Amino acid sequence: MAAALSGVKIVCVGQFYLAPYASMILARMGAEVIKVEALTGDPYRRGTRPGEEEISVQFGMINSGKRSLALDLRHPEGQEILRKLVLQADVLVQNLSPGGMDRLGLGYEDLAQINPRLIMASGSGFGSSGPLAGKPAMDLTIQARTALMTTTGFPENPPVRTGPSIVDFMGGIHLAAGILGALYQREHTGRGQHVEVSLQDAIMPSLSSNIAGMVSSGGTMPERTGNRHGGLAVVPYNAFPAKDGWVTLLCPTQPHWERLCDIMGRPDLKETYPTMRVRCENYEEVDAIVGAWTAGYTREEIAEMTEPAKIPTAPVVTLPELIADEHTKARGVLRWEKDDEGDYLTWGSPIFMSDSPVEDPPRTRPLGADTDEILTLLGFTDEQIAALHAQKTVG
Amino acid sequence: MAAALSGVKIVCVGQFYLAPYASMILARMGAEVIKVEALTGDPYRRGTRPGEEEISVQFGMINSGKRSLALDLRHPEGQEILRKLVLQADVLVQNLSPGGMDRLGLGYEDLAQINPRLIMASGSGFGSSGPLAGKPAMDLTIQARTALMTTTGFPENPPVRTGPSIVDFMGGIHLAAGILGALYQREHTGRGQHVEVSLQDAIMPSLSSNIAGMVSSGGTMPERTGNRHGGLAVVPYNAFPAKDGWVTLLCPTQPHWERLCDIMGRPDLKETYPTMRVRCENYEEVDAIVGAWTAGYTREEIAEMTEPAKIPTAPVVTLPELIADEHTKARGVLRWEKDDEGDYLTWGSPIFMSDSPVEDPPRTRPLGADTDEILTLLGFTDEQIAALHAQKTVG
Repeated sequence: MAAALSGVKIVCVGQFYLAPYASMILARMGAEVIKVEALTGDPYRRGTRPGEEEISVQFGMINSGKRSLALDLRHPEGQEILRKLVLQADVLVQNLSPGGMDRLGLGYEDLAQINPRLIMASGSGFGSSGPLAGKPAMDLTIQARTALMTTTGFPENPPVRTGPSIVDFMGGIHLAAGILGALYQREHTGRGQHVEVSLQDAIMPSLSSNIAGMVSSGGTMPERTGNRHGGLAVVPYNAFPAKDGWVTLLCPTQPHWERLCDIMGRPDLKETYPTMRVRCENYEEVDAIVGAWTAGYTREEIAEMTEPAKIPTAPVVTLPELIADEHTKARGVLRWEKDDEGDYLTWGSPIFMSDSPVEDPPRTRPLGADTDEILTLLGFTDEQIAALHAQKTVG
Repeated sequence: MAAALSGVKIVCVGQFYLAPYASMILARMGAEVIKVEALTGDPYRRGTRPGEEEISVQFGMINSGKRSLALDLRHPEGQEILRKLVLQADVLVQNLSPGGMDRLGLGYEDLAQINPRLIMASGSGFGSSGPLAGKPAMDLTIQARTALMTTTGFPENPPVRTGPSIVDFMGGIHLAAGILGALYQREHTGRGQHVEVSLQDAIMPSLSSNIAGMVSSGGTMPERTGNRHGGLAVVPYNAFPAKDGWVTLLCPTQPHWERLCDIMGRPDLKETYPTMRVRCENYEEVDAIVGAWTAGYTREEIAEMTEPAKIPTAPVVTLPELIADEHTKARGVLRWEKDDEGDYLTWGSPIFMSDSPVEDPPRTRPLGADTDEILTLLGFTDEQIAALHAQKTVG
């Protein structure tokens, strides 16, 4: 059985998380990915802790299953090598600093002349239009700029960023979706196109509840709602105290609420708070009642009581608990693999496709480990390759 | 110019955000989407605030550009209507409660017999395997379960959820990517497949820095780092006080740091903190120095000073500031549209494709607004349609 993207060739001029996550998703669907890095390497390649001198843990997780070509794109011969790669590639995905590829003569217009079937995909902080086009941005920048920070945290505390790099990954998966859409379209048109995703655009839809709450309340809603619903439009919806830690609980529909009232032994509350609207208008009261109830039980006891009623509850777990969790292990998206050099941590595929098997991703390659082989396939002689190394065009 | 998914027919048995965001992305790429809802409507259809009695703001943003079919799938004739739809559809995307479609006789195995080219895409909290398979889950549940909450917030405060519904949307866009990959693969195999995305799997890669920090530090890293880097692997990286509010600033590479030292008039710091590793080991000191410098300027002044050095900085903006922002308006992903009934808020496409124009999405349809037209196209007579209404199989 072939994989979904079997035979699709991708060149990833990516760094940090944005483009590398897009190319990781495509690699897990079976595409061949060549990762092109400067001779100094992707800034995330090396880590700051012992054992991470060559490959950091996060770099290893994201870039497994890709080949590594170290190439100085500022060098005219480096640009020429990239053009040769593009000639036989289906996709070039990149997130150099905005306009960077254009300044190297490697923008979409240039590359489409060489290969009209090429799909070029560009990720950036703000996109190529609008007043902030071209400004540098990373995950933190966009979290600040898109109100992700001011909508996160407790009302009485300062704004706070989301701990994980959700903006970078949201951008990366949107970029992957754009590439896949363009690959599908190319089957019908025979031509490639330029796909563009900005981090800001990609994260904004996730603010739907918050924006809707702000607009529909006429701006009266608190900006940050702690562990409550982002639009204060679902109640109860919170992290509540249990005997042994925090437990989250929500009642997204009327039947959920009515079943919870029965479980709490308080059928009278169905009449006191008969609709979502009434519950939303009295969210502090409702949360206080639910919290007083949860405080009398352990998280496990609460899960057992609420499960038959299909009320979603969950313990608030720590990172070590997540890594050790049986469900995490069973799913295999976060996975330890083993090869001759020992164990390594990697991502599998978060997308399961019944007709497209995911291979265990081989360990992330050292910088430039595949340079010579790739150059040979492009038609360079051993002598030429040695010369390119000597003048530091490749590494 | 045709759109990427021109002619692709999608049936979305989706509710809340997960499947509806996937089908929104595909609609923006030009697919025809029929949204199938129970006769009571998607739980997010109606809002809790005045003016949201029929269509809530967030429901309107996500479901614009789709047709609406109100159908009782518990009814055998309702199931038969869905089978007729599936016969001519390319994709069925759904996020009913886990196993829900199977219990209705509408699981992938059943539907593939009717239409082997069908791509069925299922979104759920935990997926269909592993000890938590089938447990109910929504955004909050997964934020708790995947350590998103314990990695978010200030170390001295309790865990806190990310304000926006990033888990639901991360799941939705992964589901869309899986569908697009399957559409591409079908061009080569001629057959459909089952695509599955769980919220837990989809959000986990965004924890790369956090997991890497935990693993590479041997578990000594603080779980929550406030506005600092999730793995404490980039320093400086924080929200700092400015004269007129908070400003984020980070130095992802060595040159960024060296340029910042010059801008701060402190070239001596290049020697005091010569490498990322040294800066990471002394993050509190470095942050204190940078914060003392930022406190003397406004956010605008800081942006002007750091911009030539390509150091990403950003004001920490509020939701109203985001909505009013000129860049937000110029990009048009969050957009006000106008029709005969007045203004409405909607999402455009966060993915720009040069060969696939995005139409302005028409207003979200009232529940069942397209039921009769769709049934007529399926071959039902007016009399049959009236009978289906009378027995409440359709609405």
